[in-house]
Amino acid sequence: MTAAEIKFVKSLSQKKFRDQYGLFAVEGEKLVAEALASSFEVVNIFRREEIGEKAMERISSLSSPSPVLAVLRQKNTGPAGLPSNGLYLALDGIRDPGNLGTILRIADWFGLDGVYASEDTVELYNPKVVQSTMGAIFRVNYSVTSIPTLCREVRSFSGRIYGTFLDGENLYSKVLDSGLGSPSLIIIGSESDGISPGVASEINERLFIPPYPAGASGSESLNAAVATAVTVAEFRRRQHA
Amino acid sequence: MTAAEIKFVKSLSQKKFRDQYGLFAVEGEKLVAEALASSFEVVNIFRREEIGEKAMERISSLSSPSPVLAVLRQKNTGPAGLPSNGLYLALDGIRDPGNLGTILRIADWFGLDGVYASEDTVELYNPKVVQSTMGAIFRVNYSVTSIPTLCREVRSFSGRIYGTFLDGENLYSKVLDSGLGSPSLIIIGSESDGISPGVASEINERLFIPPYPAGASGSESLNAAVATAVTVAEFRRRQHA
Repeated sequence: MTAAEIKFVKSLSQKKFRDQYGLFAVEGEKLVAEALASSFEVVNIFRREEIGEKAMERISSLSSPSPVLAVLRQKNTGPAGLPSNGLYLALDGIRDPGNLGTILRIADWFGLDGVYASEDTVELYNPKVVQSTMGAIFRVNYSVTSIPTLCREVRSFSGRIYGTFLDGENLYSKVLDSGLGSPSLIIIGSESDGISPGVASEINERLFIPPYPAGASGSESLNAAVATAVTVAEFRRRQHA
Repeated sequence: MTAAEIKFVKSLSQKKFRDQYGLFAVEGEKLVAEALASSFEVVNIFRREEIGEKAMERISSLSSPSPVLAVLRQKNTGPAGLPSNGLYLALDGIRDPGNLGTILRIADWFGLDGVYASEDTVELYNPKVVQSTMGAIFRVNYSVTSIPTLCREVRSFSGRIYGTFLDGENLYSKVLDSGLGSPSLIIIGSESDGISPGVASEINERLFIPPYPAGASGSESLNAAVATAVTVAEFRRRQHA
């Protein structure tokens, strides 16, 4: 591996260069195997056995470099039209890479039809996001778009828009529409500020995950990914039932 | 603030010195306010207004130092006896500080009676754990203990031991005992290796969170904190119903 190649792969840890080249890196035998089986174009693969331990350490974003790293071509995550049905997430400013990765795993596990993210959500191809998806990045439909515009699209299809609020209604006693006839959108607020005011005004189904015992909790909130999981699991539980 | 004081507070970012002094630090106005309202002993408080921006930057573990930092006395997290009823979590090797913090928020929100952690679980007073609990650390009963020994205690009370497995039974069709008559323990496996073999053999109630659609999922697992949340929420949903 030449010094120029090392520099090139290493540069993909920075958003500026990921954007410039339209590429990103994934590391680890499991993730690289999933990449190869996915619809993503694999541009190059570097194996420790071939390039040596030192080169691997230099191109890796991990504290303990894995035996293999693949460079993949990014897919277009530009605004995509909303289908006329399905269950979707809209991320209104998720900032933590681990949270975004965890949310993609949730979307994958619970078979959501897609995830829409606001412009101020952490970038999908950030190495920490990619690694924490554990491969879900290869399977989940993902698009960066304006959430208020998306909400208007949902309404044009007579769909429903859900969000969790501390003064919302009990998740377990609400009718939950899984989007079989028209699109349903679940809005996830940012870790620090929750759902932004411009988006909150679009939500017509305000949910609340009841603490236990009901009404009594010193804690003010659940982590964004946890609230997503409990909400999405309840939509799917009703369909299994 | 003297150089010696700065060095002392800064040293609390290392486990070695936290253990030696039996102290830990919390940062941020909300967390410090919760610390003051809690049963934890507050040893010292440092405010940016008083000590200056530079000193604050030096003692802070955060990338953007908050206006206030408090030094607290640790509580004993040594092995504690198991009460004769209640719903508990047992953490079998959680390594990620953010996951541990998130799990404590879940335990707080859903009113669990306590959390037991194995020796190889990340330390409770690690700054990243403390900050990610968002205050739950001040309210949740927490004890470090041997999980197999704990399981034997649960059995001596005729309690139940739950865990999630890829070949477990559907969470939504199982009887779930919330521990009103005897203790119920939910085991949470480590992020990379799941539940360890010595603990898995103690579990008599094997659960599985069904993906959607049932039986079909490319994804292999949910994040440890997410699986905890979906499982605990289901125990509590049954009690609300």
